[in-house]
Amino acid sequence: MRKVIIGVMGVGEKATTDDLENAYQLGQMIAEEGWILLTGGRKAGVMNAASIGAKSVNGLTIGILPGKDKREVSEAVDIAIFTDMGNARNNINLLSSDVIIACGMGAGTASEITLALKSNKKVILLNQNEESQSFFKKLSPDNIYIVQNVLEVISQIKVFVLTT
Amino acid sequence: MRKVIIGVMGVGEKATTDDLENAYQLGQMIAEEGWILLTGGRKAGVMNAASIGAKSVNGLTIGILPGKDKREVSEAVDIAIFTDMGNARNNINLLSSDVIIACGMGAGTASEITLALKSNKKVILLNQNEESQSFFKKLSPDNIYIVQNVLEVISQIKVFVLTT
Amino acid sequence: MRKVIIGVMGVGEKATTDDLENAYQLGQMIAEEGWILLTGGRKAGVMNAASIGAKSVNGLTIGILPGKDKREVSEAVDIAIFTDMGNARNNINLLSSDVIIACGMGAGTASEITLALKSNKKVILLNQNEESQSFFKKLSPDNIYIVQNVLEVISQIKVFVLTT
Amino acid sequence: MRKVIIGVMGVGEKATTDDLENAYQLGQMIAEEGWILLTGGRKAGVMNAASIGAKSVNGLTIGILPGKDKREVSEAVDIAIFTDMGNARNNINLLSSDVIIACGMGAGTASEITLALKSNKKVILLNQNEESQSFFKKLSPDNIYIVQNVLEVISQIKVFVLTT
Repeated sequence: MRKVIIGVMGVGEKATTDDLENAYQLGQMIAEEGWILLTGGRKAGVMNAASIGAKSVNGLTIGILPGKDKREVSEAVDIAIFTDMGNARNNINLLSSDVIIACGMGAGTASEITLALKSNKKVILLNQNEESQSFFKKLSPDNIYIVQNVLEVISQIKVFVLTT
Repeated sequence: MRKVIIGVMGVGEKATTDDLENAYQLGQMIAEEGWILLTGGRKAGVMNAASIGAKSVNGLTIGILPGKDKREVSEAVDIAIFTDMGNARNNINLLSSDVIIACGMGAGTASEITLALKSNKKVILLNQNEESQSFFKKLSPDNIYIVQNVLEVISQIKVFVLTT
Repeated sequence: MRKVIIGVMGVGEKATTDDLENAYQLGQMIAEEGWILLTGGRKAGVMNAASIGAKSVNGLTIGILPGKDKREVSEAVDIAIFTDMGNARNNINLLSSDVIIACGMGAGTASEITLALKSNKKVILLNQNEESQSFFKKLSPDNIYIVQNVLEVISQIKVFVLTT
Repeated sequence: MRKVIIGVMGVGEKATTDDLENAYQLGQMIAEEGWILLTGGRKAGVMNAASIGAKSVNGLTIGILPGKDKREVSEAVDIAIFTDMGNARNNINLLSSDVIIACGMGAGTASEITLALKSNKKVILLNQNEESQSFFKKLSPDNIYIVQNVLEVISQIKVFVLTT
């Protein structure tokens, strides 16, 4: 029986301290709810922090890697899916997630949000600047959810998961 | 010898009249410069209009299709590349284009811009609202070029093509 | 910490009774060893049978789907990865598997074996006709392992897993 | 109007002299018929030789690259499509070709043949050993065409192109 997968997307090497803290907490709370965490899988930034958070409470973590090199995988990833398709793997991230959370912003994260909206999927934006909020809200008023903190993310996921 | 390829990205079925007119003119002027036009290849919106423009002056047109069905291809596309990989083909569009132009805005177009920025490629924005301009300029100050009309697009492409 | 993933590849709708029985047993024995099972994820043929076998002993099952439609997923798949990239997803199947087993033969299965050999991965062939054995053994003498039954598959996997 | 594209697949760095000569002649004759040549695009083996053959008579050549690095492209390729998806790009090669020719044999070429058969496409085999002929003929009796020389390839393509 297919399990619920929550995707946490965010910046890699250049993630801010705020984003890393949020990602860790998100990973932890997602695992505590019994959901599976999906990230981009590399040992960097938001991907890594969220996975570490989930493992801290014995959650299950999936990483969808852009490459095929085992050395790139975060040590907090249980199941590594090697795509060897570079940034095109971003489309797999969101198609495989029941809910997508953008934790911080960068070009890669923005591609995941826009690909998600293109596939008519719901996206929760956490810790975003004004320009991002205005742009995404205008691009897709119905599928963008702007929240203020990690607790609101979890509440919002519960609404989505219960109604689908 | 590899030829110069210019990618024109934009909305499909829901393109505005402005976007369609710009796309037609862009296709025409790109072909007149001797460059090859690359689009998403479907018989809809900006992809179709740009390809028709290029063919009106005997240009060469490439379409990178999301599916594998020949009936989806614009009749103004000479070379149809069938990817059967849905929106993930957007990454191929920009990797294969020497310069990328966003003609109007939608979720798919935004994914092509952000994937281009992620790959450190230059993107020219034409006919964009304020929110798009602010967002992309903030996301990547060095690789986003905002222009006012089709003639400025061509001038900007020439600068890029000559310097690479 | 990345877990060991064993990929079982085989025919979908047209699988033989032999292949289905082998697949079920393989899934079961893979799960009993504590390994994770990876298949193509659809509710058909070898993919489905192997996943059902693994779940019969509470194993963990991953399915790498060619599409994006939840209705296509085998009910015995825990973690569904939706690629929406058709047969190109076959490359992800083998890149993500530590060992690949071909259980029966068809065009799709043959593509997974050949892509695996192209990536210099080891492949175990079970229940193959003479033509398949001769062809693959000639194509890649060093990476093809021909075995006679399910027990030999498991023994061979253990050799690979212990030495990598 | 979509043009006819003929795909020539074969070994890269390890191609035999026979395969290279066949590939050059195939490229030449495909171009002389007014068809467009599609290959894997790298400057190696059959891909390179076929492209050089086509350019020797001013044909048009497409290369579908596995990477994104311009330095990998054969100098005889006019239109380089960069996929950055490794061996998964093999699926695009065959989906985009009206007819596929396997000129020699290796793991990559075999993956292209099998993916083509999986998509119910016709494949012409040139210069194949007995094991390859037996295997593919058994795998797909209706879609495999075994020919003896380059002239027979062209005759066979004409039959396909006229009837589709």
